[in-house]
Order: sequence, then C-alpha cells, then structure tokens
Amino acid sequence: MSDQSTEIVEITGHLMDSGILSRVLNDIREYGGDHVVERFDLGHNSGDTSYARILVTADDEDALQRMLMRLQTRGVNMVHPGEVTISEADTDGVFPDGFYSTTNLETRVRLGGHWLTVANPEMDCGLIIEQHSGPARAYTLPMSDVKAGMQVVCSASGVKVTTPIPAGGVEQEVFGFMESDVSSEKPQTLLVRQVADGIREAKAAHKRVLWVGGPGVVHTGAAPAMVAMVEAGYVDVLFAGNALATHDIESSLYGTSLGVDLAMGRGVEHGHEHHIRAINTIRKAGSITAAVEQGVLTGGIMHAMVTQGKDFVLVGSVRDDGPLPDVYTDVIEGQRAMLAGLEDVGFCLMVATMLHSVATGNILPASVPLVCVDINPATVTKLADRGSSQARGIVTDVGLFLEQLAMELLPTYQRQR
Amino acid sequence: MSDQSTEIVEITGHLMDSGILSRVLNDIREYGGDHVVERFDLGHNSGDTSYARILVTADDEDALQRMLMRLQTRGVNMVHPGEVTISEADTDGVFPDGFYSTTNLETRVRLGGHWLTVANPEMDCGLIIEQHSGPARAYTLPMSDVKAGMQVVCSASGVKVTTPIPAGGVEQEVFGFMESDVSSEKPQTLLVRQVADGIREAKAAHKRVLWVGGPGVVHTGAAPAMVAMVEAGYVDVLFAGNALATHDIESSLYGTSLGVDLAMGRGVEHGHEHHIRAINTIRKAGSITAAVEQGVLTGGIMHAMVTQGKDFVLVGSVRDDGPLPDVYTDVIEGQRAMLAGLEDVGFCLMVATMLHSVATGNILPASVPLVCVDINPATVTKLADRGSSQARGIVTDVGLFLEQLAMELLPTYQRQR
Amino acid sequence: MSDQSTEIVEITGHLMDSGILSRVLNDIREYGGDHVVERFDLGHNSGDTSYARILVTADDEDALQRMLMRLQTRGVNMVHPGEVTISEADTDGVFPDGFYSTTNLETRVRLGGHWLTVANPEMDCGLIIEQHSGPARAYTLPMSDVKAGMQVVCSASGVKVTTPIPAGGVEQEVFGFMESDVSSEKPQTLLVRQVADGIREAKAAHKRVLWVGGPGVVHTGAAPAMVAMVEAGYVDVLFAGNALATHDIESSLYGTSLGVDLAMGRGVEHGHEHHIRAINTIRKAGSITAAVEQGVLTGGIMHAMVTQGKDFVLVGSVRDDGPLPDVYTDVIEGQRAMLAGLEDVGFCLMVATMLHSVATGNILPASVPLVCVDINPATVTKLADRGSSQARGIVTDVGLFLEQLAMELLPTYQRQR
Amino acid sequence: MSDQSTEIVEITGHLMDSGILSRVLNDIREYGGDHVVERFDLGHNSGDTSYARILVTADDEDALQRMLMRLQTRGVNMVHPGEVTISEADTDGVFPDGFYSTTNLETRVRLGGHWLTVANPEMDCGLIIEQHSGPARAYTLPMSDVKAGMQVVCSASGVKVTTPIPAGGVEQEVFGFMESDVSSEKPQTLLVRQVADGIREAKAAHKRVLWVGGPGVVHTGAAPAMVAMVEAGYVDVLFAGNALATHDIESSLYGTSLGVDLAMGRGVEHGHEHHIRAINTIRKAGSITAAVEQGVLTGGIMHAMVTQGKDFVLVGSVRDDGPLPDVYTDVIEGQRAMLAGLEDVGFCLMVATMLHSVATGNILPASVPLVCVDINPATVTKLADRGSSQARGIVTDVGLFLEQLAMELLPTYQRQR
Repeated sequence: MSDQSTEIVEITGHLMDSGILSRVLNDIREYGGDHVVERFDLGHNSGDTSYARILVTADDEDALQRMLMRLQTRGVNMVHPGEVTISEADTDGVFPDGFYSTTNLETRVRLGGHWLTVANPEMDCGLIIEQHSGPARAYTLPMSDVKAGMQVVCSASGVKVTTPIPAGGVEQEVFGFMESDVSSEKPQTLLVRQVADGIREAKAAHKRVLWVGGPGVVHTGAAPAMVAMVEAGYVDVLFAGNALATHDIESSLYGTSLGVDLAMGRGVEHGHEHHIRAINTIRKAGSITAAVEQGVLTGGIMHAMVTQGKDFVLVGSVRDDGPLPDVYTDVIEGQRAMLAGLEDVGFCLMVATMLHSVATGNILPASVPLVCVDINPATVTKLADRGSSQARGIVTDVGLFLEQLAMELLPTYQRQR
Repeated sequence: MSDQSTEIVEITGHLMDSGILSRVLNDIREYGGDHVVERFDLGHNSGDTSYARILVTADDEDALQRMLMRLQTRGVNMVHPGEVTISEADTDGVFPDGFYSTTNLETRVRLGGHWLTVANPEMDCGLIIEQHSGPARAYTLPMSDVKAGMQVVCSASGVKVTTPIPAGGVEQEVFGFMESDVSSEKPQTLLVRQVADGIREAKAAHKRVLWVGGPGVVHTGAAPAMVAMVEAGYVDVLFAGNALATHDIESSLYGTSLGVDLAMGRGVEHGHEHHIRAINTIRKAGSITAAVEQGVLTGGIMHAMVTQGKDFVLVGSVRDDGPLPDVYTDVIEGQRAMLAGLEDVGFCLMVATMLHSVATGNILPASVPLVCVDINPATVTKLADRGSSQARGIVTDVGLFLEQLAMELLPTYQRQR
Repeated sequence: MSDQSTEIVEITGHLMDSGILSRVLNDIREYGGDHVVERFDLGHNSGDTSYARILVTADDEDALQRMLMRLQTRGVNMVHPGEVTISEADTDGVFPDGFYSTTNLETRVRLGGHWLTVANPEMDCGLIIEQHSGPARAYTLPMSDVKAGMQVVCSASGVKVTTPIPAGGVEQEVFGFMESDVSSEKPQTLLVRQVADGIREAKAAHKRVLWVGGPGVVHTGAAPAMVAMVEAGYVDVLFAGNALATHDIESSLYGTSLGVDLAMGRGVEHGHEHHIRAINTIRKAGSITAAVEQGVLTGGIMHAMVTQGKDFVLVGSVRDDGPLPDVYTDVIEGQRAMLAGLEDVGFCLMVATMLHSVATGNILPASVPLVCVDINPATVTKLADRGSSQARGIVTDVGLFLEQLAMELLPTYQRQR
Repeated sequence: MSDQSTEIVEITGHLMDSGILSRVLNDIREYGGDHVVERFDLGHNSGDTSYARILVTADDEDALQRMLMRLQTRGVNMVHPGEVTISEADTDGVFPDGFYSTTNLETRVRLGGHWLTVANPEMDCGLIIEQHSGPARAYTLPMSDVKAGMQVVCSASGVKVTTPIPAGGVEQEVFGFMESDVSSEKPQTLLVRQVADGIREAKAAHKRVLWVGGPGVVHTGAAPAMVAMVEAGYVDVLFAGNALATHDIESSLYGTSLGVDLAMGRGVEHGHEHHIRAINTIRKAGSITAAVEQGVLTGGIMHAMVTQGKDFVLVGSVRDDGPLPDVYTDVIEGQRAMLAGLEDVGFCLMVATMLHSVATGNILPASVPLVCVDINPATVTKLADRGSSQARGIVTDVGLFLEQLAMELLPTYQRQR
C-alpha cells in the first residue's frame, strides 16, 4: 500500500550458523510487516561472517518503529540510523509514548552528529540522554526510576547495537558445542571442565565471578563444595533469595544438634519449624554479618561469604517466611542492588533457581558469559526465551555438578564422605 | 536416659487410611525422639475414626517442645496441654526464643483455665495473646509484624489444634479420589466437573471463590473462558503477579492491532517490547482501574475484574519489568494484602503458578478446600510439601481445563472458535 | 590438503526461515568437513524460496560419501549426482560396506541415464535396485530384510532427494505457527481445530488417517471420545502396543462389575491383577476380533475398531504381560506389519506414546503430515531429533485434547458427564 | 447382605511407618469390598512390628478371591489359608478362569497338608503345581508359557506370601532414608556411597550385580566409568536394548575417526547414519563377541563385557534399527533370557531406561535390593507403581552419578579429563 512505512536495515554476523536470520524474518512477520532481501553476502568459508541488507515494510510509522526496536534485539540496525529522537518524560515512573525499549547488547546513540556509547546495557529499559551539563551522556534506566523532565529516546532512529561476535574466545571454544540446544544427554564431566575454564579465564582477566543460586544448592548437599569455592575466591558475588540463605543457615544452626541433619541423608520438608526459627535467630542478631561476628553463625555458604568479605544480594519473594533481615523485601530496590552488584562481573553461573536466574538475565549485559545449571530443562529454556541469548544451559544434578566443579577448580578438594 | 523429657500426646482421625500416623512417627524420629504407643483404637469399620495415644521422648525439654510443635502440624495434641507459656517480644520483628510456630489448622490456646480460639490460622507465624483491655484475644502474626512488648506464646503447652475431619463433605466426595497422589493419568473431564461442584458449593454457602493465577492462563488461550467465569460471578478474588496482569493487558491492548495476536496462534516470546509498553501505558493511566475508566483498557481478565467490582491482589517479584502500578513491590506488604483478601473465602483454585500458589498456601487456613491445576506436577508436589495438606492436584493443560470448566459452569458458554 | 575429496552440492527451499541451512553447515562441521558457499540466492520477497550451492570438502572419499548421505537428510543434493554405484550383498541381513543409508524424503536414483523414483521412502534403510527382469525398480529395505545377492546402492552418487515444499498447504497454514518450537504455552483450543482441519483434509483427499496411541488415552478418560471418532470414520488405522489395547479391554470387561471403575474417578495402579486377567480372557477367545464376535468384548476402542472394520497393528515390548494374542511379539515382524499399514495414509496423529511414536516416525515418509500430542515435551522433542522433521508437537493433556477434538469433528458429540 | 463372602486376613510388619495398612484398606475399597479391623497390635516401641487381623467382605466369592489376590501383593495373608485349589489348563498359553495371579514376594502354597515354597517369585504369572513324578513342586510361569494339561492354582486359598522385613540390613541402613519419596533434593554424594555399599555387600555375599541400562549411559559420557566398573567386577549381568549397545559400539567405532566424537562434546542426533552403519558392521562380524574376537570392536562397554566374560541380554523394541545380531527380536524370548539371567543376582542397579527397568521390575523377586537412577522422576515413579515396591529412586544426572560411583568403588579411578 502506498501509505506504508519502510526502512532499510542490515545485520552482520554468523547469520547462517546461528539461525539468527530466520529469527529476524520471523520477527518481521510477527510484527505484521514484510521484507525484501536487497543484498546478502554469505561468508564463503566457514568462520566468515555474513552480511544482509533488508528492506522492511510496516503498516505505519508507529508499527515500523516498534518493529525496528524488536529487530535490534537480534542485532539488526538501520543502514541510515539518523539522529535520536528525544521526548521529555512528563510523569515520574512513566516513559513518553513510543520510548525506545532497550536490549542487553552494546548500544550507541547518534546525537549531534556523534556516536555516544550507552552505559550499562540492560533489557527492557528506557534510554536516557543527559546533556545539560558537561558532555552528553546516555544510559539505560528501568521504568520505575524515570523522573519527570528526563530526556528519553523515542523511536529506533539514531540507535545502533552491536552483537558480541565470538572471536574464537570463550564463547566459541568453551561453549560452542552447547549452542543449539538444551540437553540432558551430554558428556557431563566435559561440561564441568569447561565451566571451570570459563571461571578461571574471568579471574585471570581480573573480572568478578557472579553466582546466582537457589535452595537446591543446599538440598543436594553441595554446600561444602560451594564453601570451598567461596574460600578459594571463585565466588565474588552471590545473588539469591531468602530460601538459599535460610536453608544454608538452618543447616548450620541445626544440622547437628537435631539429628535430622543432612549428613544422615534425611529429607527435610519445607514449611517446618526449623527454618522459621533459623530466620528468627538471625533477625535477633540483626543481620547475617552480625550473626557471624557474634559467633551465632559459624559455618555454611553465607558464613563463608561474610568471612571472605564477598558481596551478596538477597531479594525476597511473596512466598518468603520471615524474611532474613538482609533480604530486600522491595523487589525494585532489590533489582537496583543487583544492578549495582554487576560491576566488573566477567562470568555468571546460575544454579538451581528459575526466579533469580531470570531476574539476573534481565539486567546482565549480553557480553557476560552466562551458564545456567539446573536439573529442570525448563529453567534454561525460559532464560533463553526471555532474551538472554548468550545463556548456555547444562541440565544436570546440581549437587554432583558442584562437587565435580570443586574438584576441577581445587586440586586438593576432597569430596565429602 | 534419666534426664530425657517426655510427654503424652494423642490424635484422632482417619489415621490408617490417610497414612498420617506413619508421618507422625517419622517426625518423631526426625526430631531425634522416640515413642511408645500406649493405646491405639482403630476404627473397626471403614469410615470410623481411629485414636492413638503416644508417649514421646526427647533428649531435653527444648527438643521436646519443638517436636511437639512439629507434631501439631499433623493434628497431634498433648493429652494434658496445661496452660500457655507467654514471653514478651523485646525487639520489633523478632519473636522470643522458643516461640510457638503456628500451623494452618484451627487452633485454641488455654489461658486462665479457658480455651481461646485463635483468629486466622496461618502457617509459620507466632501466636500473640492480647489481654490488656477487654477479653483476652489470640491471633497469629507473621514474624515481620511483631512489635516489642507483644505477648508471644512460647513452647507447645496450652495449645490445641483440630484437623478438619472430612465429614462426607466436599473433601470426601469431591476430591476423595485424588487422595493419594498427583497424577496425569486421571479421567480429566470428571475432574473438571468436580472442581465445578466445589465452586458451586462455596457459592451456595455464600463464600467467596479465590483464584490464584499465573501468565499461563493467558498463554494457553484461556483468557476468554476466565473472563466468562469472572462475569458469571465465579471469581471473587484474584491473587497474581505482574506477569498475569501484564500479559492479559498486553493481549487486550495489542492483540489485534499488531497481527501478532494469539488469535493467529503465534507464540510470543518473553522479554519483547509489547509487554514493557503495555506496562508503561497502564502506569500512564495511573492504575488498572483508571485505565478501564479512561477507556484505555477495554477487554481481558483484569478489565472484567474491574468492571465486575472484584478484588485482586498483585504482588511483584524480582524478575518483574515495570511493574504495573497496582503491583505491590514490597513482598511483605503484598502478603498482608493477600491475607486481607482471604476473608470469607470458601474455595481456592490455583492455576499455572508455583510462586503465588505457594505464597497463598502459606497463609490459607487448612479448612479451605484447595485445588491446584498445572501442567507441571512439581507445582502440586511443592505445595503439599510446604504443608498445604488439603491441596488436591490436577496435572493437566490449563487452557483446555479452564475452557471445560467454563462449559461446565456456564451452560450457555460457547467455546472459542 | 591436496588429497582431500570435494563435491558441489545444492539446496532449494525456505532456507532462512526454517533454519535448515544452519543445520546443514553444522552437519558438515560435525562430519569433520569444510565448506565454501559458492552461490546463494536468497528469495527477495518473503515466501520466495532460496537457493544455495556449496563446495564441501572432506578428508577422504569415504568421509565425503558419508557426509553427502547425511546432508541428504536435509534435502541437500549433489549438483552433478552421476550414476548410482551398486554392490551386491553377500550375506543375508547385512548391507555391503558403504551402503547408502536412506532418508524419509522423496528419493530418486539415476541409473543408465534415467531417474528412477524410489518406492516407500523410509529412514535408515538400504536402497535396493532390481533390474533383472522387466523395468528397473528401486525401493528401500530394512537391514534385516536384505538377502545375499541383492543389488544395494553404495555411496551417495546418483541419489537425489526432494524435500516437501509446503505450498500454502496443510503444512504452512495449519501448522505453520508451530514451526519453531515445542511449547505448552499455546492457545490450545486453536490447536484442536487445526488438527481437526488436517484430519478433514486427509479424508477429503480420500486418504487414510493413522493414529498411534499409548495407554494414556484410556487413563485420561478419553476412550469414549476416541470411540466416537472411530465410529465416525476418523480413525482408519491404529498402531499401538499391548498396553493401550489391554487397558481399553480391561476397562470394558471390568469397568462396571468391580466398582473400581474409571467412572468413579479412581486411579488404577499398574501391575494389578485385572489387566493380566483381561489378557487371559482375550487369549481364551483367541483374538480381539474373536472376543468381539463371541460377545465377550462389547465396548471400548478395540471393539469399535473391530466393528468398524478398521486396521490395527499391535506390537509388543519387553515389559509386556501376556501379551494379547493379536500382539506381534517379534518387533521386526511388527515393523513389517506397521509398514504395510501405512498405505494411503494422509495424516498421522500420535497420542501419548513415545515408543510407538518414534517407531512410526522411523517408517513414515516425510510427506505425511504428523502431529504428536503428549503432556510430556520430551516425546515430541525425541521425535524431531530422530529425523521426523515434519513432526508438529502439541504439549497438552491428552484426555481434554481428545475430548475437544471429538467435539470439533463431531457436531453432535456430547461430552461425558 | 446375607449372600456376601467374607474372609479373615492378617498382616505383620512395620504397618504404620510404611503406610502399608492404608494401602491395604484402599485396595479393599477399590475392589468394592468392606472391612472390619478385628484386632490391631501396634508395636509399642519404634522398631517393633505391628499386627493386624481384618475381616474383609466382598459381594461374591469371585470378587473375594480377586481381592485376596490383590491383598497378597501387599503381604496380606488369610488366617486360615486352607489348601490350594487347582485347575487344569486346557489351552496352550491360556490360564484357567480364576487363576491365581502371582506377586514378586516369597510365596508358599499348601498342598496335601504341607507348605511348598514357590520357585522364582515373579509378578503377574500363574502358579504351576507339578506332582506327577517325584515330590510336588510349585513355580511361577508366564501366561505365554503355560501348556494344556498343566496344573494351575486358582483362587487365593492355600497361598501364603512373606514380605521381606528389613532387619537392620541393607534396606534399612542403606536406603532407609529414601523410603518415602522420589526427590531430586537429596544429598547426592551420600547416595552414591550408599549405592556403592549395596553393591559391595552383594559381592561380599557372593551374589551377582545386575545392571539395567539405557543409551543415556553413553550419551552422558559415562561409558569410561562403566567400563572401569565392568573391569573391576562390579557388573556381572547387563540387561539393555539395542540402543545402549549400538550407541556404545558406534562411539567405539567412529568416536575418533570422525571428529564428531563425544570427546569434543558435540551432541549427536539420533537417526543419523553412524548408528545404522555400526549395526551393519557388527551384523557382518556375526555378533558382538565375534566382533571383539575379530578385532573389529576394541573398546567400550560391550567390549568390556565380552572380554570380562560377563553376561548380557539385549532385548529389542519396535523402534529399533537393525538390530544388532545379539538382540532378541522376540520380546517373549527376550523375557525368558532375562529371567534366566537373574540367577544369583543380589543387587540391581537400573540406569537411564524406563522400558528395560519396568521389564526387569516385572520379573525381579522383591527380595533383591533395587536402585533406579534417572534424571526423569517419572521413571522411578512408574517402577514403584508397577509393583516393585522395593525400588529406591535417585533422581540425578546419570553421567555424574556413574563417574562418582566409579570413584567410590575404585580408589584408583581417575576421572576423565
């Protein structure tokens, strides 16, 4: 139709191998648009990158702009991006109509003829421009943090994203084989070693290693292995909820005194009185750190994090009892604390938690390698569906995996007997 | 040993059929105790209740008290309960040591020679006694709400619980067949009818019907069926998170305009821009209700809840985008709002959400019939593990289940074509 | 290296949308080969097919031939296929070295300058050429059926396959939306209608509808719905094991007499005496058909198949009790019977069985539309992994699905009450 | 009613702890009967066994007899068993009406005033009495093996079963904690050690260790660990299907030559040409043993079984390609071979296979300790549902589990690098 809106976009990368181009074309269809591939240069040799230039059409300008934003999550940019369009937010916590919705890819905006790199790429945020004083600055901001008067990028024009190209680095060599799918039928001992390599590379590059964990770490008996890795410096930051910390603390406080302990192999039901009592004990002490200092808490994962001076961010959920005094009960404040904890993170290992894994995936830049370990394939699938395209999944038993990871990372680690 | 502590306890009910006695004996072992069955009267005929009197032993008084509290979650009471022991809380948000940890069973406390019924039984709370002015009053209170100076029941003495005995009522007739296990191999159309009967009985008794739902309700295409049930008065209260409401609203706002709609059967990935834009639109309107009043939101489940004047409580989680302005971002405040929403609830249907189902299970009295529908057996198992022993599970497809439920409840309901 | 072997191959189709090219390139790498894309014509408009010509390299001729066979499972052919190479089998049940391993795609072989169409395309077979008497003939043959002296195609030369191109037909319109993934989050009522459309189209084209079923059909209470569809002519052939037939027959024989019946909603454990007694009863009658004729079996799915004169093939497994006299206890003979049952099949619906679904997928030509319904996502994934690329998966409750399918296909069908 | 049939039955054991009595009462209800508990002696102290005497009623004698047979699967016997009733089979492969359907418990029959012990207890069989020549003999026989003229026990009278009472032995100490449920939340390294203890105890008692395995053993990279355990004598018999052996052999034959090998961590799809070619190679050699002797097969699990002179029984299924020449294609013959392989088995470990695990469970006496390891909880649940009440389940990653088991059993075992 004569009144349709069009734009020419381009994408470079391993378009064929990764199946990315088929997703791009699907996106266009899903947004009710159409396409003509104007040019396609397929890398002749394996390893070469490919290039595609596509004319996309949408019913109107609004639809086109939204399709362009969607395509950017795949790494597709306009050939002629122009300059950013900016609107002022007129209400706290609300973006202007047509705001640019961010990706977790490295992003630049074109302003006054110059390209400006966007600080802390994060999904589903707005893009704020600050130019009142000093040099112009661009950064992502969650919807709830926007204030009236802020300058917000609207429409996709003037925005460019860059997909991380695995240059024979960690991505390609370490996790290349896991590219296509989530599977429980993989040689697991090999995967263990490759995660260890990823962690060692991050440490060698003076980056921090982020762990995101669920209570399954404690239930599967992996706490001693994790403690050993904390003490050896392989856990710099821990994101978790009330459950992991409570079960860990409960296990330290009542593990031996009661005879119900995990060392006897007895299963422990949820909702029983130990865990609520453990929480009360820490609340009485004031905080986890205070409980360690007062000699109340003398072992376990949280104790190790405190004594090693490592950071942890615990964010609550609606099903929590207590919670522990260290837990953020306001989830938006919790998200801010997690965001602050991402600094210098060079590797992320997610273990046995869907809720906190997805939450971390939302804020983690696509440039940080990310491995998700769970016995439930749905956790990994969910993560990738939410946009964490760099996520590599390992479907395995968390307890045995962490045990083996400790043996791999720590030559002197003796497994529990 | 001479310094052990002992107590005589008793339990009445369908001890054999339900397997409850075996769980009681397991609990005693788990808490490091021992037992001698002093008397056991097994109901001679099927249908008769049984009675057991057991001498329990623990290493010391503390261990005994905690075992007794644990046993009360099974409906086991002391033969000579004595009077309650009360301590004063000396810090806000912290119970005194040895506080009584509540069950979700009907509870009474013995004070000054009289039995006092505890208001709103809820799991994992403390038991507060108020007797300063007027008649004495006992009620449960979550740990985070306790204030310094409150009178808190400590130890198990003076506390008595009553398990709901299914007297040929809803429990027995409607859900009797699901007693033993969670299974996907059941005649599903029969289950649909029995849930409908449970809902109709609650309405006939002038009770409210509580729904707890996850985004799967929208993804499986069941929103029209649910809207029809809201309009017919079968949904009095809705507990959910940001996701159900956002997906529902997004589907209403962009369902047709974009051609990506569910009516075309296209799957929609998470993390895309529609949902963040839908949230922004509602934030701009001020609230879901405001959006309905302004004519911004004109269809879907949330619209139906608003136009029918029904209550909903949305509680956020750390993975939320936005969130919608109606969402409680503080999970403890959210729990309080849910608790307030439980008034007069006579039936609870949980659909496609583990997080909010467990959260609701935590605060729901054991006397309210509870059915949990999910395609994932783990959700139902988790619920029962957490102590919601009245939970009945149906492992099935949520979309088809709600479609059939609407046909069962609403003779004129035409299924979607 | 100078001694490497090379070949030029080509492929036509929706290369980008379907992600097929990325799988082809992966295959080449997996077989240790390399590639140069010599030409790539991407369909300019959406809907256009694409064309790729690729130079592939392998370490030696053997590796090359095997890679070429592998690529043919994707629809990739040699540009210059040459003539077929034929070797004679010298042992019964053993193919000559380097035999061509077949795909389930439409296949032709070039012999004496002419193209010969291969009869009954089936996966993982050998390709036999008969030219001793009359015109030359080519057909697939399972390994166990080959006889010494047969002429067997070796290497990939002279063989050409054709992928079914969804020409706006069933594939595209009916199941297009399910292309990318297996999901439980789809609008299920829509899927029901689309399966019904697929079945109706097959019947309209005078093709037969094949059902492959597991015992879950009976356990979920869907037998009455299936019986109605059998009677209405929508089930022409049934492939199943001992379990579906036994549970169905047991339900008919003892359903009412015992009071344990499904109508009461009671779950029935496996391994109990009813089912072994039901099998004995049919063995006494001589066969299922005999039991129907003698008035021993008067209801259920198998009864309906017999009275409607429909075909069924029951193939046993190592876990079977009995088995029923109609069950093939030799699995290779069972495979032959299933193969014979495929004639004129134009649509295949697989319900609640992994074993028989995979077995059917092995022998079903890629040109037959195939829908697999199971509450377990793994069944569908497994099917696609095994090479049934045309498989479309629906993860849902089998009982409710068949109930809805009956309502969709049979306007007068009254659902069970 | 006056014409009802009654019988007095009794049961001894840990009736409360195990929940067995509640299952017995459920059975009575399911069979449409009623009960009066005439006497109940509960063990006073924990550890004591209990005793119950129950009057059961059924509508008629037939219903009663069948209920009594059902109750025997729980270990419930008649107080006055009387003598066995015997009928002659009049058709090959068919039992007389009312035949006694066996359990897998130790069984005795009363004949001519004497108790006769039944050889090889196996589920769902008939009970044959031989007394024509020499002393009378009783044994179980599958339905398909019965011949006309054989003497078959009918009704439950004269039959007594004995449940294995865990006398502080393997059951209690090793697997006691797993009694109640299947769970993925257990301390896994502890479970590994306990399985190792069970295997060592069986070897110490000069019993054989039976492994039942699926292809996941190979896919998860556990083949080297299993080979080490075969070589160390911890695998005496292996039951498997075509898939485990084929994948193992394929991995040995093509693992290195192709570069697609598992050592590189690449996933391998099913249905590809390697596996069909591997099968052809072994068929050409004549058998797996012949392939080892000819130097064709030089590594892997099957190679180790052959060189160590261990037994293996491979039974086919309808989805098999080939199959390997050693595979029983007739499932009934396969069952007979498996039955013969059970001699002297004192421990059974099932790994990553539902089909062959259930098949083995069908024929394994209840007295043999049985552990089932699978990443899929459904496998373990299915096994228990089918009547293998002694089954203990471990839900974990098979690859890491076998790796750890090898380390536990073999002090010098070096894990793969």
